[in-house]
Amino acid sequence: MVTNVDHKPPKVHNYPMIAGIIGATGYAGAELVRLLFKHPKIDKLLLSSVSFEGERVEDIYPNFLGVVSAPLLKAEEVIAAADVVFSALPHAVGEHFGAACLERKVHYIDLSADFRFDDDEEVYSKWYGKPYQFPQLHKKSIYGLPELNRQKIKDNAKEPLIIANPGCYPTGASLGIFPALQSPSVEKPIIINAITGISGGGREPSRSFHYSECADSVTPYKVASHRHSPEITRNLAMMALRAGTPAPQVIFTPHLAPINRGILSTIYIPLGTTAKTVEIHELYVDFYKDEPFVRVLPLGLTAATNRVRMSNFCDISVHVDLNGSTLIVVTAIDNMVKGAAGQAIQNMNILFGFDERAGLETIPMLF
Amino acid sequence: MVTNVDHKPPKVHNYPMIAGIIGATGYAGAELVRLLFKHPKIDKLLLSSVSFEGERVEDIYPNFLGVVSAPLLKAEEVIAAADVVFSALPHAVGEHFGAACLERKVHYIDLSADFRFDDDEEVYSKWYGKPYQFPQLHKKSIYGLPELNRQKIKDNAKEPLIIANPGCYPTGASLGIFPALQSPSVEKPIIINAITGISGGGREPSRSFHYSECADSVTPYKVASHRHSPEITRNLAMMALRAGTPAPQVIFTPHLAPINRGILSTIYIPLGTTAKTVEIHELYVDFYKDEPFVRVLPLGLTAATNRVRMSNFCDISVHVDLNGSTLIVVTAIDNMVKGAAGQAIQNMNILFGFDERAGLETIPMLF
Amino acid sequence: MVTNVDHKPPKVHNYPMIAGIIGATGYAGAELVRLLFKHPKIDKLLLSSVSFEGERVEDIYPNFLGVVSAPLLKAEEVIAAADVVFSALPHAVGEHFGAACLERKVHYIDLSADFRFDDDEEVYSKWYGKPYQFPQLHKKSIYGLPELNRQKIKDNAKEPLIIANPGCYPTGASLGIFPALQSPSVEKPIIINAITGISGGGREPSRSFHYSECADSVTPYKVASHRHSPEITRNLAMMALRAGTPAPQVIFTPHLAPINRGILSTIYIPLGTTAKTVEIHELYVDFYKDEPFVRVLPLGLTAATNRVRMSNFCDISVHVDLNGSTLIVVTAIDNMVKGAAGQAIQNMNILFGFDERAGLETIPMLF
Amino acid sequence: MVTNVDHKPPKVHNYPMIAGIIGATGYAGAELVRLLFKHPKIDKLLLSSVSFEGERVEDIYPNFLGVVSAPLLKAEEVIAAADVVFSALPHAVGEHFGAACLERKVHYIDLSADFRFDDDEEVYSKWYGKPYQFPQLHKKSIYGLPELNRQKIKDNAKEPLIIANPGCYPTGASLGIFPALQSPSVEKPIIINAITGISGGGREPSRSFHYSECADSVTPYKVASHRHSPEITRNLAMMALRAGTPAPQVIFTPHLAPINRGILSTIYIPLGTTAKTVEIHELYVDFYKDEPFVRVLPLGLTAATNRVRMSNFCDISVHVDLNGSTLIVVTAIDNMVKGAAGQAIQNMNILFGFDERAGLETIPMLF
Repeated sequence: MVTNVDHKPPKVHNYPMIAGIIGATGYAGAELVRLLFKHPKIDKLLLSSVSFEGERVEDIYPNFLGVVSAPLLKAEEVIAAADVVFSALPHAVGEHFGAACLERKVHYIDLSADFRFDDDEEVYSKWYGKPYQFPQLHKKSIYGLPELNRQKIKDNAKEPLIIANPGCYPTGASLGIFPALQSPSVEKPIIINAITGISGGGREPSRSFHYSECADSVTPYKVASHRHSPEITRNLAMMALRAGTPAPQVIFTPHLAPINRGILSTIYIPLGTTAKTVEIHELYVDFYKDEPFVRVLPLGLTAATNRVRMSNFCDISVHVDLNGSTLIVVTAIDNMVKGAAGQAIQNMNILFGFDERAGLETIPMLF
Repeated sequence: MVTNVDHKPPKVHNYPMIAGIIGATGYAGAELVRLLFKHPKIDKLLLSSVSFEGERVEDIYPNFLGVVSAPLLKAEEVIAAADVVFSALPHAVGEHFGAACLERKVHYIDLSADFRFDDDEEVYSKWYGKPYQFPQLHKKSIYGLPELNRQKIKDNAKEPLIIANPGCYPTGASLGIFPALQSPSVEKPIIINAITGISGGGREPSRSFHYSECADSVTPYKVASHRHSPEITRNLAMMALRAGTPAPQVIFTPHLAPINRGILSTIYIPLGTTAKTVEIHELYVDFYKDEPFVRVLPLGLTAATNRVRMSNFCDISVHVDLNGSTLIVVTAIDNMVKGAAGQAIQNMNILFGFDERAGLETIPMLF
Repeated sequence: MVTNVDHKPPKVHNYPMIAGIIGATGYAGAELVRLLFKHPKIDKLLLSSVSFEGERVEDIYPNFLGVVSAPLLKAEEVIAAADVVFSALPHAVGEHFGAACLERKVHYIDLSADFRFDDDEEVYSKWYGKPYQFPQLHKKSIYGLPELNRQKIKDNAKEPLIIANPGCYPTGASLGIFPALQSPSVEKPIIINAITGISGGGREPSRSFHYSECADSVTPYKVASHRHSPEITRNLAMMALRAGTPAPQVIFTPHLAPINRGILSTIYIPLGTTAKTVEIHELYVDFYKDEPFVRVLPLGLTAATNRVRMSNFCDISVHVDLNGSTLIVVTAIDNMVKGAAGQAIQNMNILFGFDERAGLETIPMLF
Repeated sequence: MVTNVDHKPPKVHNYPMIAGIIGATGYAGAELVRLLFKHPKIDKLLLSSVSFEGERVEDIYPNFLGVVSAPLLKAEEVIAAADVVFSALPHAVGEHFGAACLERKVHYIDLSADFRFDDDEEVYSKWYGKPYQFPQLHKKSIYGLPELNRQKIKDNAKEPLIIANPGCYPTGASLGIFPALQSPSVEKPIIINAITGISGGGREPSRSFHYSECADSVTPYKVASHRHSPEITRNLAMMALRAGTPAPQVIFTPHLAPINRGILSTIYIPLGTTAKTVEIHELYVDFYKDEPFVRVLPLGLTAATNRVRMSNFCDISVHVDLNGSTLIVVTAIDNMVKGAAGQAIQNMNILFGFDERAGLETIPMLF
């Protein structure tokens, strides 16, 4: 392995380590399987699936044949034996697994939205149609966007934690806006025009993701009503609070395009002042200078989803409109990696003191 | 043919009619061939091509075999015999053909940008890198967006005209914004986030449109620097002037997505007041009630490129953001039809007093 | 309309004509709607749908908005009023509608497989898992591949007929092989390697046609077990019988590729002799010289699905392997048009003595 | 890293190892960069490019930004310092680099066709239009299909070798046919109907690979005239010779489909006897039981390109036609990995006594 990127030595992890995945046969779950199987610190995987309990993961995903082989167990069996548990279940069905993990004193990394809103049950129940089942758990959970909360995760990692892995859109959007919030000149509203690949819709067949209906077409969906809006708004408010700048208002419009993976976010940030591209670029480069997975592109390049494919990178390109007073930021992530499974593993790496890049060093594939 | 849409009887056109196409072997040119060949008022096509002079159009486009058959002539030969001339040449090479047509007293419908800026040579030369060759011609040309200038075209059709067929992006963007400009409450800037299919890049192979580099990826391009920005700005200024409202400022970002045809424009229009969706929708429906090719979708539907494919329609859906003060308008056109060849034929229909829908009645194909 | 293809004058059809479509909301049904709506001899469409009875066709297919507008009725209502009935139902559910049409003395054109095997109930029930419900009807039905049975259809059109519209694969395969069967030198087996677009799978969402699972992948399916095998075999046997040559054996393998429309059939025909490409080509050209929808491509061109898109053409290219003893024929059709709705309309045109091209003159679209 | 596949301990390799890549900026070259960069036994990469000498690889492939960073040198500089040299140059331009490597006593792994025909200059010059420049080199080169020549490579690895890395199509085709050749009942001709993804066409833009012309279409190309035919024929003859069975005749037809990566080969093997699927399957399973990269799929599964994506696997499914006398074998590879760069690295692993899977353990990605 060629190493022209410095790797910090990871903290030592002493025991043979078992990772458990609940909901292993959905797309995010299968991506966790794929990535964790190669993770240098994971010695064993335990998988569960409600839909396919009793079968084997390679029966559901024949691409795994001869490589990954594992029976699909009950969630309880996984939780009982794992040293860390990832949940890739749908929203609003798995809260009690978080409780079970804490009871067993193991970290629970939840890819659903269930713990993303901390103790703000009002927002959660409004957008996800369900009250909290275990309200007290939500006081202990941490929103696992490392670029926002790495220190908090580290600081609390000694006790068993619930990590709420961020939504795919909020990841791409928040990372594109955070540096701008360091300046008080951001005006409202910030417009986030995002385009997602179709894997974001998951494994279950439906009209919207039926090839003949979505290939060769682009369209927005859930205009002004997508559940990731409040998550983005909350993230920006947290960052603004930290920076001492005003919390911005957000307009978020997701689109569907016929690509397998990727989210491209084109973000329009109105500024009270006239910005110089070079200075904005410097601000962004500086803000992310220590982040292992954020690449602020050199001026002249524009973020594209095929440059981050299969990787945990978030690419960011910075532009200023002709009028000089609107910052246009473009971010690209792989929705399955930085937008889901990869970020979950990044959170695990932080929790356990591993090299944050461990298991996440896939070089982006252009095609 | 089933007729549940009323067709107005067309004005009579008395002579066997020959249409000429200059630049017939580019994508827009070939689309003109395909559509004009079936046009009920066109009796003969004459085609020219610099690149393939002496060959036949069906050699270049074997999809035409057995249907369309025509030699590729010199532009001069076409102009000498045609009753109307379409030019689908690149920008900045065909001005003199317009002059030649006027001299022969035939209408010249130009799909390039050369005549889109009327006598504003400053803007044209800034964005297209070339001064006007025949400045006086630009005083007579009319910008052929029928929804803006239908009456002007009709009123002047008795003398030979140069019609500047609009750009693809400006068509989709302008039609989405025009009704909003009837109200004085539009604030600035309007943000136009547009996504185009790859046919918009034309027939010439290049890295950007090489399958392996653009399939399965989305990316913006020419951020804050696309030549359609000034055309959109000008269109909006004209409509605002007509409506007595302030000319809006525009931020326009084009994106490339892996679809063959189509432009989706997601347009963010800040309003000074709180808007009600139903009222905005009524405004849009009313504004376009007599337009044969604009479909304001019922509330609840969202514009998508696959619903206008192959047709001359511009679909528009109207949404209001949660905050109530930003109007989100989504428009979809087929970039090759309403965005190019179809609109050019619509202009011809207006010029000659034909039914405006003549030759343009293809039902959109979902796939 | 430019006419460089001679059109034979159609026989006169005297009354305002109503076409009925049963199963109008599946993909083949909707394609019938799209094409029949513009058919010059059809004055009215009546549509039925079991799934969406009571709704309107434009609610299910918003691409039809503002163009095609029709309520979705009961099948019985359609049959009671139509002058010709098309059925685009699934296999094995609509036989009785054929009976009802004959009773009402109107032609019934069935796009399902139900009547494709004449009175060979054994083959039908083996492959479609169901005996004939009305065995006597199958003695009157005609297999509607015009290039095989045009005369038979014409000769019997005075009485109400059931036309069994061919399967998509059998159309592309049979047309590629028919001319070769005129020579006694064809040996067995003929291998048909076919690739279909995903619209062939219909409108119902399923894992196989879920975007993420089928985009960016090719795979065969139902190897050695597809229900179109016996239909192809039967067609070839009929043509061989007519030509006085041996009935060939067939191996047929369908594949799925990520394209919307189209079937490409690459056919390997072993010959007992050494063939010359030019002579084979002449044979094919001559065999199809009067066919309005078969284009035998000039030597040097190879059939491709994007050259027949949206059209009723079957393109055929002829090649001979290096060894000189295997003929390689490539055919391309649009599975929704010549492979389904277009061919059904072609059959209607023959039945009613219309110009066979009526309503089917769409020029193929390269993209 | 989870290990449920046994890894044999690799032989020790004692010095810091430098791999050189000539032609590093073509698609196969860039894939070598991507894979070798993560290879556990490679400590440094040296890259050269004629087209981009003096630039850096991450300038040409911005997906490498922040990960792979290397200047593009002259080929001579690379050869002068590398411990093993990969050449991903076009055909017929790099023979002398092989000579230079042998002189420097380092292995040369050539991804072009230049050394694939051993000393059969007649076949090479007929198909590649050029005589051998260094005929004596071709007596020492070994055709690097490990499943055919692993032992030969191992046995000769002590002296510097030229390894001719197989063509993409010949890899997928040969692996599908080899086991069948163990039986004397194979008759001729074997038909190979192959479908490739568009990356196979390389990085240079051209009409054939222009998105608008190849997306949403399938077509064969170079029917009966593709340069991989003689390579396949030769491979089968070698295997037949070894098995003591007759050398088969081959008909090979490549097709282009709109997928990024992958080659699917559907192979029709006529048998003199009636075959039982289970027995054929056992034969295939047994034949490949020790191969690390060939997966003979369980009966009931069919090979698909998306199940091997990004991996070095060749998936094989075995089917028997209804008539029982034609074996249908389907193979799927990733054309960039097992069909090019991956296989080249597999060859390096064999040459140096590394674990054959080293650097090639990417789990296939469904999408």
